[in-house]
Amino acid sequence: MALHFSRDEFAAREARTLEAMKARKLDAMLIFAQESSYWLTGYDTFGFCFFQCLVLKSDGRKALLTRSADLRQARHTSIIEDIRIWVDRGEASPIVQLKDMLFDLELLGCRLGVEYDTHGLTARNGRLFDDNLSTFADLVDASDLIPALRAVKSPAEIVYVREAARLADLAYEAALAEIRPGADEGRILSAMQGAIFDGGGDYPANEFIIGSGADALLCRYKAGRRALSERDQITLEWAGVYRHYHVAMMRTVCTGEPTDRHRELHEAAVAALAAVEAELRPGRTFGDVFDAHARVFDERGLFEHRLNACGYSLGARFTPSWMDMPMFYRGNPAPILPNMVLFTHMILMDSATNTAMCLGRTCLTTEADPEPLSVASLDLISRT
Amino acid sequence: MALHFSRDEFAAREARTLEAMKARKLDAMLIFAQESSYWLTGYDTFGFCFFQCLVLKSDGRKALLTRSADLRQARHTSIIEDIRIWVDRGEASPIVQLKDMLFDLELLGCRLGVEYDTHGLTARNGRLFDDNLSTFADLVDASDLIPALRAVKSPAEIVYVREAARLADLAYEAALAEIRPGADEGRILSAMQGAIFDGGGDYPANEFIIGSGADALLCRYKAGRRALSERDQITLEWAGVYRHYHVAMMRTVCTGEPTDRHRELHEAAVAALAAVEAELRPGRTFGDVFDAHARVFDERGLFEHRLNACGYSLGARFTPSWMDMPMFYRGNPAPILPNMVLFTHMILMDSATNTAMCLGRTCLTTEADPEPLSVASLDLISRT
Repeated sequence: MALHFSRDEFAAREARTLEAMKARKLDAMLIFAQESSYWLTGYDTFGFCFFQCLVLKSDGRKALLTRSADLRQARHTSIIEDIRIWVDRGEASPIVQLKDMLFDLELLGCRLGVEYDTHGLTARNGRLFDDNLSTFADLVDASDLIPALRAVKSPAEIVYVREAARLADLAYEAALAEIRPGADEGRILSAMQGAIFDGGGDYPANEFIIGSGADALLCRYKAGRRALSERDQITLEWAGVYRHYHVAMMRTVCTGEPTDRHRELHEAAVAALAAVEAELRPGRTFGDVFDAHARVFDERGLFEHRLNACGYSLGARFTPSWMDMPMFYRGNPAPILPNMVLFTHMILMDSATNTAMCLGRTCLTTEADPEPLSVASLDLISRT
Repeated sequence: MALHFSRDEFAAREARTLEAMKARKLDAMLIFAQESSYWLTGYDTFGFCFFQCLVLKSDGRKALLTRSADLRQARHTSIIEDIRIWVDRGEASPIVQLKDMLFDLELLGCRLGVEYDTHGLTARNGRLFDDNLSTFADLVDASDLIPALRAVKSPAEIVYVREAARLADLAYEAALAEIRPGADEGRILSAMQGAIFDGGGDYPANEFIIGSGADALLCRYKAGRRALSERDQITLEWAGVYRHYHVAMMRTVCTGEPTDRHRELHEAAVAALAAVEAELRPGRTFGDVFDAHARVFDERGLFEHRLNACGYSLGARFTPSWMDMPMFYRGNPAPILPNMVLFTHMILMDSATNTAMCLGRTCLTTEADPEPLSVASLDLISRT
């Protein structure tokens, strides 16, 4: 049994969920997001790549429908006791078997909250689901219900978040020990990811971003490594991950002498990060935080080099992305609350001079000032 | 520019795709699977975690609609020239912007093949898509069109597959160098993944499976590491990955003296793998291969310990899973063709004695006998 939280912790999460369901008059939640299942029960798997559904009734009864390869997985990792297996019997069959299970759970004609907004339910399965269940029950999109609860972390979660933060800093140290002219990106990536696995951590929900030269201006992972030149730049975005909780960081590091443009953009990024972190407190919204980021860059004439978003919430996430809700973009009215884990990234990409400069770290919000979760310096680093 | 195939290679793939579209009378394909985009154009990103769509018209015209963070990514990694950006303007907006683009591409009233069966299109986006486009054009589920083409590899792809195979064997060697009583699973995982990154390889599309003790009976990744005991078992399933092409392997390795049950199950697994690989040839179906696997195990009374599937195709896949179509399960009529990359896993999990025994490797099919892509021994390994 690999259960990473106490029964009391799971009971408290369930109570919050049932309360939120009651406010929306939901008789049950049909949970397709792996993040929701993990948070609510501990169930830990990438088996969501196939069809699976966790049902939570308003009386707290839970039942999981999954594939046979996940039966032991659910037993070893979760508090779910009622685990049912669907078997391949033609294409529509898992959905038909879900309908049977919902009937058995006495949910015919009830009001069901459904997680449609997740990679745990593909468009194809969603269409089959609607075709089979729209006349069976009243289906309501409740994709936002559990993510809103997950966004505020419990003390037990924050213990894991702090461990993830420690691993994130270790990964940065491991990278800096490798970065120099001639260093291979693959070696740097190996050192970073190795520090996290050696420390008992997990795979990230998306690949680390690693790109140098012209590709330092990218902010996604791609295949293909190169070696750093004498005077170069490398952009890294990574996360320490522990029990699937992510703490992200971002940096652009130079080899050789940084250019004046690097220094100029770095100074702006430091200023923007300070302005942004000053807004990470109760009373402010996610939109306010974005505005602080945009103001600093736009005042310096960097409008065309910045992004239209400057970060997002973090938590226990699964592939294909660690980016969690809410996100920092213009006008987002979601309020900053205490005990949120928030990653802000100051990304400047100047195509004209082929200059990248990225600076980002994760903070834990409190009742007052946020607490940065990284102890690493924000200075512009160069290696020779 | 990080393009991993020649323009001619992409042109040949496109020609095959257009031919398959013509056979289904499709005026355009709406591509949501990252695998399809990568195969057709080189476009390499995890940005599919947000909404994106690549349109391929029957005249070969291509246009990508994606988020701003992926504009440079598409330029640096793909042959796509017409890249359009959707911006956050309320929830339905990307779909509305897709509709505008399809109108601009003169696809009103046309017959459109749609990839619904992919994690690149969530159920929520799928519903918005159908709501907005079902009166705009004739929508046909064509999720299987490009995967069927991808399943047979070109010579240029096989070069990368062989490099992935080399990395898979290196990862196994790295694991064996770490496995001993007292060894920490995290260190073993670090060594395996490190061998692949050091060799220029990529992240796997799903996490490596690593579990020991009772958790050696699991076949999914989970958070939480332990140290091996004096007499233990560890199940590993991993893939060498190069340019996103996967070559998978699976083993259960012992510490201390293997039990008689380990030896017995290992002998059965070796026999089953031999029987299965004898079927990996043109003229046979994926169902025939499954039957060979089941026959060996069932004759030995191991029916309740085996799975209802014994492997799948491999190729260039993205998260959340490297498992590709077609798969080996009872009755699957898909034919084995030359130049397929096929992973077969013999998985035996005996809950009564808490014994795991897994053996799997990947073969390249030919006109006759398959070629195993691993040079590693199939012997039962024990480390003291």
